[in-house]
Amino acid sequence: MSFNTFGHLFRFTTWGESHGPALGVVVDGCPPGLPISAEVIQRDLDRRKPGQSRFTTQRREDDQVRILSGAFEDERDGQLKTTGTPISLMIENTDQRSKDYSEIKDKYRPGHADFTYHQKYGIRDYKGSGRASARETAARVAAGAVARLVIPNVTVRASLVQIGPHKIDYARFVWAEVDNNPFFCADPVAAKEWEVYLDGIRKAGNSVGAVIEVVAEGVPAGWGAPIYGKLSADLASAMMSINAVKGVEIGEGMDSAELTGTENADEMRAGNAGPYFKSNHAGGILGGISNGDPIVCRFAVKPTSSIITPRETVTTHNENTEVITKGRHDPCVGIRAVPIGEAMMAVVLADHFLRHRGQTGREGGIGY
Amino acid sequence: MSFNTFGHLFRFTTWGESHGPALGVVVDGCPPGLPISAEVIQRDLDRRKPGQSRFTTQRREDDQVRILSGAFEDERDGQLKTTGTPISLMIENTDQRSKDYSEIKDKYRPGHADFTYHQKYGIRDYKGSGRASARETAARVAAGAVARLVIPNVTVRASLVQIGPHKIDYARFVWAEVDNNPFFCADPVAAKEWEVYLDGIRKAGNSVGAVIEVVAEGVPAGWGAPIYGKLSADLASAMMSINAVKGVEIGEGMDSAELTGTENADEMRAGNAGPYFKSNHAGGILGGISNGDPIVCRFAVKPTSSIITPRETVTTHNENTEVITKGRHDPCVGIRAVPIGEAMMAVVLADHFLRHRGQTGREGGIGY
Amino acid sequence: MSFNTFGHLFRFTTWGESHGPALGVVVDGCPPGLPISAEVIQRDLDRRKPGQSRFTTQRREDDQVRILSGAFEDERDGQLKTTGTPISLMIENTDQRSKDYSEIKDKYRPGHADFTYHQKYGIRDYKGSGRASARETAARVAAGAVARLVIPNVTVRASLVQIGPHKIDYARFVWAEVDNNPFFCADPVAAKEWEVYLDGIRKAGNSVGAVIEVVAEGVPAGWGAPIYGKLSADLASAMMSINAVKGVEIGEGMDSAELTGTENADEMRAGNAGPYFKSNHAGGILGGISNGDPIVCRFAVKPTSSIITPRETVTTHNENTEVITKGRHDPCVGIRAVPIGEAMMAVVLADHFLRHRGQTGREGGIGY
Amino acid sequence: MSFNTFGHLFRFTTWGESHGPALGVVVDGCPPGLPISAEVIQRDLDRRKPGQSRFTTQRREDDQVRILSGAFEDERDGQLKTTGTPISLMIENTDQRSKDYSEIKDKYRPGHADFTYHQKYGIRDYKGSGRASARETAARVAAGAVARLVIPNVTVRASLVQIGPHKIDYARFVWAEVDNNPFFCADPVAAKEWEVYLDGIRKAGNSVGAVIEVVAEGVPAGWGAPIYGKLSADLASAMMSINAVKGVEIGEGMDSAELTGTENADEMRAGNAGPYFKSNHAGGILGGISNGDPIVCRFAVKPTSSIITPRETVTTHNENTEVITKGRHDPCVGIRAVPIGEAMMAVVLADHFLRHRGQTGREGGIGY
Repeated sequence: MSFNTFGHLFRFTTWGESHGPALGVVVDGCPPGLPISAEVIQRDLDRRKPGQSRFTTQRREDDQVRILSGAFEDERDGQLKTTGTPISLMIENTDQRSKDYSEIKDKYRPGHADFTYHQKYGIRDYKGSGRASARETAARVAAGAVARLVIPNVTVRASLVQIGPHKIDYARFVWAEVDNNPFFCADPVAAKEWEVYLDGIRKAGNSVGAVIEVVAEGVPAGWGAPIYGKLSADLASAMMSINAVKGVEIGEGMDSAELTGTENADEMRAGNAGPYFKSNHAGGILGGISNGDPIVCRFAVKPTSSIITPRETVTTHNENTEVITKGRHDPCVGIRAVPIGEAMMAVVLADHFLRHRGQTGREGGIGY
Repeated sequence: MSFNTFGHLFRFTTWGESHGPALGVVVDGCPPGLPISAEVIQRDLDRRKPGQSRFTTQRREDDQVRILSGAFEDERDGQLKTTGTPISLMIENTDQRSKDYSEIKDKYRPGHADFTYHQKYGIRDYKGSGRASARETAARVAAGAVARLVIPNVTVRASLVQIGPHKIDYARFVWAEVDNNPFFCADPVAAKEWEVYLDGIRKAGNSVGAVIEVVAEGVPAGWGAPIYGKLSADLASAMMSINAVKGVEIGEGMDSAELTGTENADEMRAGNAGPYFKSNHAGGILGGISNGDPIVCRFAVKPTSSIITPRETVTTHNENTEVITKGRHDPCVGIRAVPIGEAMMAVVLADHFLRHRGQTGREGGIGY
Repeated sequence: MSFNTFGHLFRFTTWGESHGPALGVVVDGCPPGLPISAEVIQRDLDRRKPGQSRFTTQRREDDQVRILSGAFEDERDGQLKTTGTPISLMIENTDQRSKDYSEIKDKYRPGHADFTYHQKYGIRDYKGSGRASARETAARVAAGAVARLVIPNVTVRASLVQIGPHKIDYARFVWAEVDNNPFFCADPVAAKEWEVYLDGIRKAGNSVGAVIEVVAEGVPAGWGAPIYGKLSADLASAMMSINAVKGVEIGEGMDSAELTGTENADEMRAGNAGPYFKSNHAGGILGGISNGDPIVCRFAVKPTSSIITPRETVTTHNENTEVITKGRHDPCVGIRAVPIGEAMMAVVLADHFLRHRGQTGREGGIGY
Repeated sequence: MSFNTFGHLFRFTTWGESHGPALGVVVDGCPPGLPISAEVIQRDLDRRKPGQSRFTTQRREDDQVRILSGAFEDERDGQLKTTGTPISLMIENTDQRSKDYSEIKDKYRPGHADFTYHQKYGIRDYKGSGRASARETAARVAAGAVARLVIPNVTVRASLVQIGPHKIDYARFVWAEVDNNPFFCADPVAAKEWEVYLDGIRKAGNSVGAVIEVVAEGVPAGWGAPIYGKLSADLASAMMSINAVKGVEIGEGMDSAELTGTENADEMRAGNAGPYFKSNHAGGILGGISNGDPIVCRFAVKPTSSIITPRETVTTHNENTEVITKGRHDPCVGIRAVPIGEAMMAVVLADHFLRHRGQTGREGGIGY
């Protein structure tokens, strides 16, 4: 769906700017009867929260979520549960320090959406970038936490697999390591190296891009749909809708161009529980429909455009000038994109689960 | 939109299988009064048509399009014009040779959607792969030809920039070369080399992937929308919805992860007609909204999974076996994806043009 | 959904004008594995077909439907079945007699959409009224026939309950009578009287309105949704989308304004299979959700505006004139609206069934 | 759109229950640059607010609206303006008195959505009826106030034209009278009579239905679209989506069934500014498209089902019982539906205005 709504049967609408009093999300179409709590949503939000290391913006945001609707205490067990009606979640903006906007008020920041918002809407919302702020993603993470409740048998996890030119070594990939470093990195050796590298970037007043890999395990065969309802197409849309994302890949992704048919096609073997694939070049999706293997999606986040190195730009009156973007910015905004990628994977899967169940009456494939 | 419909204000629905009597598309929301003809649509279809060189399937399809509705002869000038009502376009399947399906009837082809369609729908449509056939893309190309009428000032062109591991040299890029070789390749030197390379792949009974780059020139600043209505998100969804696509990039794409903020952010300068960008790492899109620069989108097509090299697989009864896919298949299905990429870019832009005009009353940015 | 598409999970798109070569519908989201045939669709189409009595237009249309996609012969039982992919149905226009349009080519017909189409689109499609023709409803009936396959336990029937000022007597209501007269009237006494009345109207070169009542039996409690997804709201939209419809009612409808709370609220009693209602003023819908009782929906069709009595009007050049609409028109277009009303009820219910199953995993209510 | 979202280009999503901390609406797709303020929205909300006379519920709700996003102070003139991004409006529930729900906790109220919500969702949200509460309509009125900003040249007004069996006399219809009585009644004589009548109903512990008529003046020809995008179909859906509405009419409505073609079709005459209609039986809509005349829409609201007269019903355990609904309820909920009807008309028109402008590039018809 368009603009600020995403999804079909499981569907959410986000709102809010970083300079306003609050931001939030309305989750619609959630199945009823699912135990829910502010705590379970907060857990995901806390992972996205800035200021947790020197590698993310020092802006202090509590990001305390409130459930404003769509839940009711079930009298049978005293648990708060979803009712099937829209779930409104709100997060107040607590750290709106009275900033000095004079530096950017009349200047477009290169690489930023300043210029395009102004051209589109004719309004110069210079405070905190309007909807282009990373604040919007808090609402997505909240929606993602609800989505996880819908698909309890699916595990959605993400990690940073590349920062600048430095990639992880998949031979050292251990999920448990993800929470042991400030990068959500599953390769502890790479994480150490990145620390040094990113310190250099940060001190140079620069920033750098990153690649996030999101993996969903436990998705049965059959979710998704041919053509414009492809699971892969919705994932591509979901990830590309995150501010600063410039590329999305499923399975082998762009590298699939380099492979031959014999290398790329995942061969199949008979298993006790039905056929299985000997490899997963497909990233768990064939013809837009899940094949039972883990869904693997990667996306690239460009370097933050808000940097303190002076850049050539123009004023809103089309005069040449320079700009530096002071303030509390992420040297690598890709780090905080890790929980956001998880959230978007979760909402796409929750939506496709409900759509598949609606059309076929089954929760997965026909099985064996 | 879901399933077999794409777009919002400019919106189309495709239907049809390769084994059926016909396939087609219904284009809805097209502005009225645009001169239209079967010929102008046919021109785009002819570029996608198979059998034009030894590098595409030898299946002979005339792909003759008929306009069944939505057009009317304007009595004022005798021209056939769109009426604003749904335009139904149909292409009959003329080359449905009575094939021997015994080889694949009970076997899943590795890398193919056979298995996932069966799991999802419980129906084994073994003839020509149902909706997973490349035939569906003829309908897209027809829709794209209509979309071009909506945005006459925009030039949408695509070319093959990589085949297997072989990339073009952008220093030799000349649009006019695209029609001088069987690859839609803008680099004549690369095209020569690819001929040798792909002959080897073809003779080995193998296939290979490719990368297509689509460029739209003439898009004013202001098209697109923040968040889930991003021009980039819709392009990602559009390209990933093409069968066999596994990755989508805007501007620097996945490589933007390797860049620093100073390298990636396109600096601006004052120009006579308003600000301009000194570079186009952004691929013409900032914050999901066009910035006036060319829109640059690349996507990777995986190697055809239908190859004549034997591959391990299972039967529909979960027994180990081998399969070879005889028949008339493309050694590099990416070649024919070039006009398809153009079509999808055109429909996304036509849709965003109408949406932008609807919301703002302007055809582009506020200008200077 | 907008423009020429209706529905969410069960969704169809119609196209075609009466003057063109064909018209049709693409049904998307239909569950797979349902036995389908052109015959079962034809049966519904034949009921809508004009020229079956002197009370409907004498235009001869065979209305032969063809299934162009979305069905496949199941090898297990040899039956043609839906595959889950889009079902394209086409009906060729066989009776496009070369008409003399000189009378209406430059004149707006009062009560007709001539004027508004021209104002909106700037195109004067004087042949057969473009999309405002009753021909479009053939496509709906075809979609409705598919919808019935989705909800086999639901019986959807309609009848004419009023023609001009003459209402049926519900005490004489017998469903079996509907096919015994040219009016789809369940009251045989009224049907006799209407014959005389409508002959008078017809001979006077006039036309008259009618009310159709559609009843769906077998709908379990639980279909529908609160607020903008109400079963009643979708029925209202569905019926009002039929050309010439000016009013829609659920249950007591407009008359509910005259009732008091004690009269209108349907009291409940405990039954063996759960609670039941002592009456059905609600028309089977409470809060937008089905309550297990028959769904009752009525709609009013205005008198055909195409009449042979001269009427004051203007030319397309804003000059005063008179017009008479010769040709083969229905003295009461409401008669043929009976199968159309059934079709629209069926598609709304099929859609809500799939949506309900998607969101809740159940096919109906929680039961007792 | 489904569930809790309404509209296409101008689109809103409502959330909230009467027992929760707040309710609200997110308005998406609003054009940028429109002056907005909490005051202008509050003005419409205040008209809907309960407790303004003895004829509406005595529940005291301040209904103070807050703008949480989507507006920005334009530095050029200091005015708060829409930015084109989602406008989030929130209303806190201030009068949630700790009620005794023991009477209805385990009983279904006849005529109420209690039973159907329970059957659908399996959750018994007995406090304040969940989304079936009239509280939801406050969110619509807020959205409608924003919609009015989008179509400043259109005047949308509504009035009560029938209460129980008592209709107004259109000969005495004066818009200015609407605010002079507690019924939004344009006929001062009828208003006096209704006072006596409704006092009787109220004292008898009963309730009664009503009919609201909404009129939009200043709509140019050309808004709307054929078939499923009909202005009339969207109005029908909009009005029927209001809780307790059971019938919707455009122009002559259900009575059009009684008219002949000569009586019903509005004849046309040439005027200085183009053709005009001699009458408005059509209610301003032909073929789903506005014809330049006032849009006239009526809808019937059933009597409040929450009454203090004992009614037969069952418990949630399917046992026979009786129920009376104590509390602060409206004897005629139709009264407060007047501003709601205006709001729904405004949002439908704002949406169609944007859609029309998007598809055609014009703000109205082609004119003369």
